[in-house]
Order: sequence, then C-alpha cells, then structure tokens
Amino acid sequence: MTATDLLDLASVFVFALSGALVASRQQLDPVGFGFVACLTALGGGTLRDLLLDRNPVFWIAEPHSILAALLAAALVFLIAPRLESRYKAIRWLDAVALSSAVVAGVSAAHETGQSPMIVTIMGMITGCFGGLMRDVVCNDVPLVLRHGEFYVTAALAGSVTSALLALVIADSTVYLLAGAAVTFALRGGSLLFGWKLPNYRHEPPKQ
Amino acid sequence: MTATDLLDLASVFVFALSGALVASRQQLDPVGFGFVACLTALGGGTLRDLLLDRNPVFWIAEPHSILAALLAAALVFLIAPRLESRYKAIRWLDAVALSSAVVAGVSAAHETGQSPMIVTIMGMITGCFGGLMRDVVCNDVPLVLRHGEFYVTAALAGSVTSALLALVIADSTVYLLAGAAVTFALRGGSLLFGWKLPNYRHEPPKQ
Amino acid sequence: MTATDLLDLASVFVFALSGALVASRQQLDPVGFGFVACLTALGGGTLRDLLLDRNPVFWIAEPHSILAALLAAALVFLIAPRLESRYKAIRWLDAVALSSAVVAGVSAAHETGQSPMIVTIMGMITGCFGGLMRDVVCNDVPLVLRHGEFYVTAALAGSVTSALLALVIADSTVYLLAGAAVTFALRGGSLLFGWKLPNYRHEPPKQ
Repeated sequence: MTATDLLDLASVFVFALSGALVASRQQLDPVGFGFVACLTALGGGTLRDLLLDRNPVFWIAEPHSILAALLAAALVFLIAPRLESRYKAIRWLDAVALSSAVVAGVSAAHETGQSPMIVTIMGMITGCFGGLMRDVVCNDVPLVLRHGEFYVTAALAGSVTSALLALVIADSTVYLLAGAAVTFALRGGSLLFGWKLPNYRHEPPKQ
Repeated sequence: MTATDLLDLASVFVFALSGALVASRQQLDPVGFGFVACLTALGGGTLRDLLLDRNPVFWIAEPHSILAALLAAALVFLIAPRLESRYKAIRWLDAVALSSAVVAGVSAAHETGQSPMIVTIMGMITGCFGGLMRDVVCNDVPLVLRHGEFYVTAALAGSVTSALLALVIADSTVYLLAGAAVTFALRGGSLLFGWKLPNYRHEPPKQ
Repeated sequence: MTATDLLDLASVFVFALSGALVASRQQLDPVGFGFVACLTALGGGTLRDLLLDRNPVFWIAEPHSILAALLAAALVFLIAPRLESRYKAIRWLDAVALSSAVVAGVSAAHETGQSPMIVTIMGMITGCFGGLMRDVVCNDVPLVLRHGEFYVTAALAGSVTSALLALVIADSTVYLLAGAAVTFALRGGSLLFGWKLPNYRHEPPKQ
C-alpha cells in the first residue's frame, strides 16, 4: 500500500461521513446512505484516475476503500442524531478529508510524472469533485458557489504548495504534509474566522 | 455479439423510452428528445466502461445502440400522447430496463475478471447512473433520493445475487437471469405494493 | 500543434469567457471564476478524450489550454462590468466557441479513425457538454432544455456536415471550416431570427 493509497483511504472515510450526513438530512434509507457516502468519498479520486489514465481506478485496485465508505455510512446511520448535533465537528472532519484528498491527488499525479501544473490541478480535482458530485446529486448549492467560504481556494493553495515543494524536496512525507497543513489551515481559518477572498461585485450603475 | 451486448441493447431501448418521455414532459424539440434519450440509455454503461477501462465503450463498438436509442426517441415523439396516458406502463418498462442494465453491468465486469464486489458495484452503476444523469440534467429530484421507492436497493439486490451465483454456476444465462429476476421482482413489488426500506428518521428532540 | 489542438485552444478561450461571465452573475470570488471558466472550457473536450481513450487528455498534453482559460477568467473578472452590458456580444462569442468546439471534436474523432456516426457524436459532445456541466454546477437550466433556442441542433448539423464531407474531401481545412460555418450560421440564425425546431406539444385533452 503506497502513500497515495493511505491518503485516499483516510479522505474516503471522512468524506463518506459527510456524504452520509447529507443523506440523513434527506432522510434516505440505508442503501441511500451508502450510495451518497460512496459517491462523495470516491468521486474525486475516481475522476483523477480517469483523467490520468491510472488503471485500475483506486477503489477497484483497493476495494477496502469501498468498505471504509460503507462503514462510515453505517456509523452515521446508527449515530446520526448525536452527529447532527455536532454539525460543527463534521465541518472540521470535512476539512481534514479535504486536506488529505488534496495531497492524495498530488501524490498520485506526481507518481505518474506530471508537470507541477497538472499535479496542482489533480490535487484540486481530487479534493473538490467528490463533494461537488454529492451536492449536484442531492440538489444542493455546490460548495464551490457558496459565498463567504474558502473551499476551492484552500484546496488550490495546499495543492500548489505541495506541487512546488515536490520540485525541491525528495521526501514525499514532507511535501505532502506541508500541502495538507496549508489546506487545513486555510479551510480552518475560513470556518473559525470567516476568511474569504473578495467576491466579484458588479458596480451598481449610476452610483 | 456477446451476452453483454444483447443485454446492453435491450436496456438501452427501454431506458431511451423513459428518457424521451421525460423530454416530452419538458416539451423539448426532436433533437432534445434524442439527446435526453441517448443520455439516459447510454450513460450508465458508458460510466461502467470508463471505470473498467473497456475499450472502446460499448456504443462506439456497437453503434446500433445509438440507433436503438434514437428509434425509441422517435417512437415516443410520435406517439407520446398515447404513452403518457400509460405512465404506469412506462414505469414497468423502466423496471425491465433496470433489470437488464444491472445484469449487463454484471456480465461486462465478470468478463473482465473482476472480484464479486466490483462486479456487484458495476451492476448497480450500469443500472442506476443513466437515470441519475437524466434527472440531474433535467433538474428533477434524482430517483436515488425519492422516498418510498425501491430503486437502488432493487439494483443492488439483483446485482449481488448475480455476482454471487457467478461464483458457483458456470452458465451465464442462469446467473444473469436470476439477477434480472430479483431486480425486477423487488422493483415491481415496490411499484405494486409500495415496498421500501425504512427511511432514516431523526428522533425529534424532547419528544 | 495539430489542427485539433488549435481548434481546442480557440474554443477553450471563448467558452472560458462565457463560464467566467456566469461566475460574475453568481458573484463568485476570483478562484471561483477560474474554476467555472475551466469547467466550461475544458469539460466537453475532456469527455471526448475519455470516451475515445485519447491519452493524455488534451489539456494535460497541452497545458496552455488551462492558461488560456485562466486568462479569459482574469479578463472577465477585471472588465466584467463592460462585458456584462455586452451580453449579446457574449452570446455571439459563445456561438463562435460552439462552432470551433464542434469541429475540434470532429477533428479529434476523425484522427482516431472513427466512423462518421461516432465522429458526429464526438462533435456534438465536445460542443455541448462543457456548457452543460457549467449549467448543472451553477444550478441553471441547461441550454439543452431551453425552449426557443437552437443549440444542440446547430451543433448536430455542423457535426454531420463535417463528418460527411470528411468522407469525400481529403483536405481537413475544408470540411472543418464547412462544419464550423454551418454550426455558426444556424446558431446565429437562432439568435438573430429566433429560428427553432417545433417543440413537442401535448395535445390538450378534449380540445
């Protein structure tokens, strides 16, 4: 099991928790919990593997990813009343998942010898697209469009950090941890202090 | 033409009918009918083929799938007023399509030597994702989220049945028919008798 | 750089303008502009490359596509107030992008030796799916469903023209230009004169 596999597994479990929590809001049945959890947990890495032509995709190569996602769904189904009152905790878990998914994407793209730009993009895609698929399927406003949040930006910053450090540092533990730390710090800062980039504002005509 | 091809073709035609019926509700033009019919009919099998790296995807290898989908779209465009008053019949046709698509997915994954778990998942994906894409593009609430329905669960049960029987029975006709029968029986029971799994219910606070 | 690459690049830039304009309506932050611009600009060609198993996908092979999309996003972010009052101009730019994307799809599919039917479909997919992804992610009604518009139909007509001419004319410049001209003429006619196909109308009962 490589570093990419371990990082995938960690982000899969926590993303699956967030997907199952969305399923609990939609009051789905147990199979629906598993479905949304798997979509959220596996979607970003699957898209990355298709784009990079990594064969087989990670959850076909390592099916315990699927078991981890289903375990998370079962956990949430059983104890969601307690978890729901801990919505804040879930957002923090989601920040952990985002951080590990971003560097899982960086690691996978780096392994296949991509340029820093493609490595950066694969980090973002792995981090962001699972949640995007969850939101689209569940008819939510996707995170990428929510105002006053720092989500894609946190993924981008961590991904760039990791991709650039990988050029000068040979030890993958260092550059992956650094990327995860940057993503988590920015996402956490956004949750704690409302950090965000300035939104585009249309100049009102004839002010 | 293999068993997978035949099953794909059968499910393509009936799924295309359901897609074109959605197009008729949205009052699209003829090209829109063809577009939604093809998306619904080909979406699930396409995703399966991309994930399994089957090259070329089935409708590039066997373009009569596309012709079957377009034929279904043309049929619905011409006779939709009669079909629409037969909404119930369409739901039953959709149950047939789901059953054959699930075992088409099982058959394709089995051919490429996947484990029973991956075979099961490919059955579900082939059965469910065409309709999911149709609903997302047409801004409908996806089937997977509808309450009081038994859809993903029926696909899962048929897929599991077929994948497990394939371990002990060499004759593909037997295990594919069994899987299709289980899917159809459960989906049909849900349509006839309202069978469903218990939804998740949040305990109301301070009951 | 091949003809396909050049056509991809042209359509990427103009589609990115349209994506960024949608981002400006949603009042996203700069990273959101880049995200929606890239999704719109790269989505159709990416799906085409996955389906045709072209490796690597075009924007991994030629990363200046990504730079072109980001440049377009930055332009719109800076000068959107002027562009927004030029909504009409943007629709015309979008028609240019559609025309070049359609023939970029035709060119790529033709290079890989596909049949005219598959070549036609790849032209439509390359032209239409970037905008479709933009609309789904941004919770808009997808263009393919809008009434009184001529969008998929224009793409189809240009794609068919180009795919059929490619059978009898060896010079790719001729058949690609012809396909682009047909798409642009039909889309332009729809914008100028409201050209459209008859929508499906359900016969009102007991008229």
